Amino acid sequence: MTVTAPQQVAPAGPLDALKRRLNLISDLGAAQGLLSWDQETQMPEDAARVRGLQMSSLAGLSHHLLTSDETRALLEAAEAVDTGQLSEVDVDLLRVTRRDFDKATKLPTAFVEDVSQARNEAHHAWIKARADNDFASFAPYLERVLSLTRQYAELIGYDQHPYDALLDDYEPGMKTAHVRQIFADLRERTLPLLRSIVAAGDATDYGVLTRSFPAAAQRQLSLKVAEEAFGLLPSFSRLDESAHPFQTNFSADDIRITTRFDEHYFPMSLFGTWHETGHAMYEHGVSSELERTPLARGASLGVHESQSRLFENLLGRSKAFWQHYFAELAQAAPEVAAGQSAESIYRAVNRVEPSLIRVEADEVTYNFHIMLRFELELALIEGELSVADLPDAWNAKMQEYLGVVPDSDSEGVLQDIHWSAGLIGYFPTYSLGNLLSVQLLEAASQNPEIAAGLQNADYAPLREWLRVNVHQYGRRHTPAQIVEGATGQPLSADAYVKYLFEKYAEIYGL
Amino acid sequence: MTVTAPQQVAPAGPLDALKRRLNLISDLGAAQGLLSWDQETQMPEDAARVRGLQMSSLAGLSHHLLTSDETRALLEAAEAVDTGQLSEVDVDLLRVTRRDFDKATKLPTAFVEDVSQARNEAHHAWIKARADNDFASFAPYLERVLSLTRQYAELIGYDQHPYDALLDDYEPGMKTAHVRQIFADLRERTLPLLRSIVAAGDATDYGVLTRSFPAAAQRQLSLKVAEEAFGLLPSFSRLDESAHPFQTNFSADDIRITTRFDEHYFPMSLFGTWHETGHAMYEHGVSSELERTPLARGASLGVHESQSRLFENLLGRSKAFWQHYFAELAQAAPEVAAGQSAESIYRAVNRVEPSLIRVEADEVTYNFHIMLRFELELALIEGELSVADLPDAWNAKMQEYLGVVPDSDSEGVLQDIHWSAGLIGYFPTYSLGNLLSVQLLEAASQNPEIAAGLQNADYAPLREWLRVNVHQYGRRHTPAQIVEGATGQPLSADAYVKYLFEKYAEIYGL
Repeated sequence: MTVTAPQQVAPAGPLDALKRRLNLISDLGAAQGLLSWDQETQMPEDAARVRGLQMSSLAGLSHHLLTSDETRALLEAAEAVDTGQLSEVDVDLLRVTRRDFDKATKLPTAFVEDVSQARNEAHHAWIKARADNDFASFAPYLERVLSLTRQYAELIGYDQHPYDALLDDYEPGMKTAHVRQIFADLRERTLPLLRSIVAAGDATDYGVLTRSFPAAAQRQLSLKVAEEAFGLLPSFSRLDESAHPFQTNFSADDIRITTRFDEHYFPMSLFGTWHETGHAMYEHGVSSELERTPLARGASLGVHESQSRLFENLLGRSKAFWQHYFAELAQAAPEVAAGQSAESIYRAVNRVEPSLIRVEADEVTYNFHIMLRFELELALIEGELSVADLPDAWNAKMQEYLGVVPDSDSEGVLQDIHWSAGLIGYFPTYSLGNLLSVQLLEAASQNPEIAAGLQNADYAPLREWLRVNVHQYGRRHTPAQIVEGATGQPLSADAYVKYLFEKYAEIYGL
Repeated sequence: MTVTAPQQVAPAGPLDALKRRLNLISDLGAAQGLLSWDQETQMPEDAARVRGLQMSSLAGLSHHLLTSDETRALLEAAEAVDTGQLSEVDVDLLRVTRRDFDKATKLPTAFVEDVSQARNEAHHAWIKARADNDFASFAPYLERVLSLTRQYAELIGYDQHPYDALLDDYEPGMKTAHVRQIFADLRERTLPLLRSIVAAGDATDYGVLTRSFPAAAQRQLSLKVAEEAFGLLPSFSRLDESAHPFQTNFSADDIRITTRFDEHYFPMSLFGTWHETGHAMYEHGVSSELERTPLARGASLGVHESQSRLFENLLGRSKAFWQHYFAELAQAAPEVAAGQSAESIYRAVNRVEPSLIRVEADEVTYNFHIMLRFELELALIEGELSVADLPDAWNAKMQEYLGVVPDSDSEGVLQDIHWSAGLIGYFPTYSLGNLLSVQLLEAASQNPEIAAGLQNADYAPLREWLRVNVHQYGRRHTPAQIVEGATGQPLSADAYVKYLFEKYAEIYGL
């Protein structure tokens, strides 16, 4: 584990000038983030058109500031400073800035504009295609996005596989071959578990999840737990409503999360809020030393997802959690708790059932939704699968992994926004995050105080461990460095598989 | 009245390039506005430190974009286009952009930084001095602000009086001599009225204003009236709470107003909301042709205040308004309305009483608070009055105009934020706005449909008149052009004096 060295006295000139530039770019990024958060949570509807122009205008300015000759000169001058005279943080800052700068400058402006245009058109075509259940109308737009994505990989460059270049945007340093190997292992070891669970059948009554629970009371309980158990304080965060839940932040002490409420399905807001709280606590835990620099955010989507899943699933869906919080639930929603117990709520929120929609999937089936998408993305990028054949390939894999096949493409290949937005290489990070969440918790639990806390829903010792071992570094370390630093092992499916078997064998009496 | 000409086919090059630049500067301004609105209404408290850095960083970028050589070159190239080939809007755009550019570039960077620093220090000193009732501790900071303000006037330049250069920032084209003359007239004609009112005494029971009125119900009534009477729709606006009420906007269809609630003094939120609604409707009414340019906002603080005062006072404190809305008040707050009538509420919300605090002053006394400040500012700028003598001068004028003297400087010379923030030349615009509000309403009322509407609290015809005669122009016309265009007369105290005499002679039986 690298420890942050005290700031050394460095020649002030070139590095400080670069930092001022990076601060400005970061500040502009914060403003863009706020424009976007406001659009999703606060903005009056008629403002949408001009807001779109404003956001695209500032995105252009941001890109210009990062890629300008002035930034290049400042970066080169700072890189010319003798490394021995720099603090460790500054060395990391220069490395990550160089990485960002090179990526941003590898793409010709005309290409960036083409991509933006193609994604925008594809996104609108997808909305319509999903509503009309008409994949064919979306196909040409997806073709165009794919073609530009292949060009993107060539422009960025890669050693082994073009998909490496895509993955690297979301999970720096992660390789396609490694994901393939981890996923193959995960598939082989958890498919039998899933089949046993399905075969075992289930006598639990899930009706409790749909009992009436007023939105205001859901909000209050979500936030009480987020604060008391997970450390999300109102002094540095706020919770709003939006159509799709997300976390964003404009500094480590200015965190915004969103959720949505269904008065007849309370898990949506509760687990949704705790999921975003995981993201929030990661960003809040980044060292203030890194503030207003490109290092001041989470290392990758996978590491981020490990934090959200840890709070949402490993803690929020644990038996000890409900033994502690059942009383709070009963107070917040007497109608929900009537005739229930900690044990029955625990079982209800851990129902395993193969289903069509990824975002509604449980801990056992979720990763199969991801493996399916990863395999299809690879086949598309490699040219082994045509866009025209995508719906059939989707349905065949759904049958193979989950034993269910959608009646319509809207509930199948058209369900996610990602491909229409050009986010190819993004899906695997969800599962990498799931795996990492358990690997981190297993490592942390070696500490007796943390292990004891888990039994009493006292997560303060665990949160401190996560802050020290994961959060504080921001982007200073790669995901692989974080995983090995915190757990002593490279990322693997081992811990996750063990967790699933133990938890679900007990629930389903296998 | 100038009417907007249809867009002519102009040589696209230089002007379009300048417009793109101005769009970007405007978009950045919108982002800065949002950062500020968010800070006042939504932001978690711990975010304040970094938010301050972000805002100051973007302010620097904005200033840089406006004053850069690139902007100068774009402006000069656009100015070289034959005016005959430009639309009227474009001619106005070039003139106002040149004005903004020249003002911004007249100030050396070091001077701008000194001013920013001095204001910041003075602001903090003022907060402390007001809390401690210790003018002497604030005096040196005010000295420094004054000295820089005098330098500012010299750098910007003026023909007759250094105060002209200050006034021009808030009320373009307005001269000190003109304000002096208007205020002298106003003072001479309304001081006798005030004295008669005070002498007449008053048997009204004002206790009704402090009856319990839950904040949620105040909010609902404020917004219902703002929408129904004044045209503020939720599709382009929203209302939040903040310590000090304000209006801001990020486009004509993205308007934010704020208010504050006192459950035992409902006029604060009701009239406060309708005041900000006047500002809001002005910004909403600016022609969409001007969007994302420096023309796309109100012409001056005075014209702005005329709109807010018109809604708050001339409509919201009129008898016809309460004859219409008393029933709504009774429904929203039965406890307030018990034993009351439209007439009694009308009298209660129009109480005239000399008092110490400007922001709590009524229609008759308010302008005396402003005249006092204007006269003291002039004396300070001219060097006729020293900062050390300011509290005594304040108290003497309070005695002279209002017959009341504060027990402490905190309730006297230290009550307003303006001087600590370097806002010298700003106060007169409040009274200019008051005068203009009545002058505009008098002119509009020549239209029988508008006059009839005023009797039934149907303000749609008036709003349309204001949109056509005032709002749509944004900054295309100077305040003087707007006043003369809309009323056929230069700004004067005539209409206001007449209004006060008629209204208050009736209320106080003079």
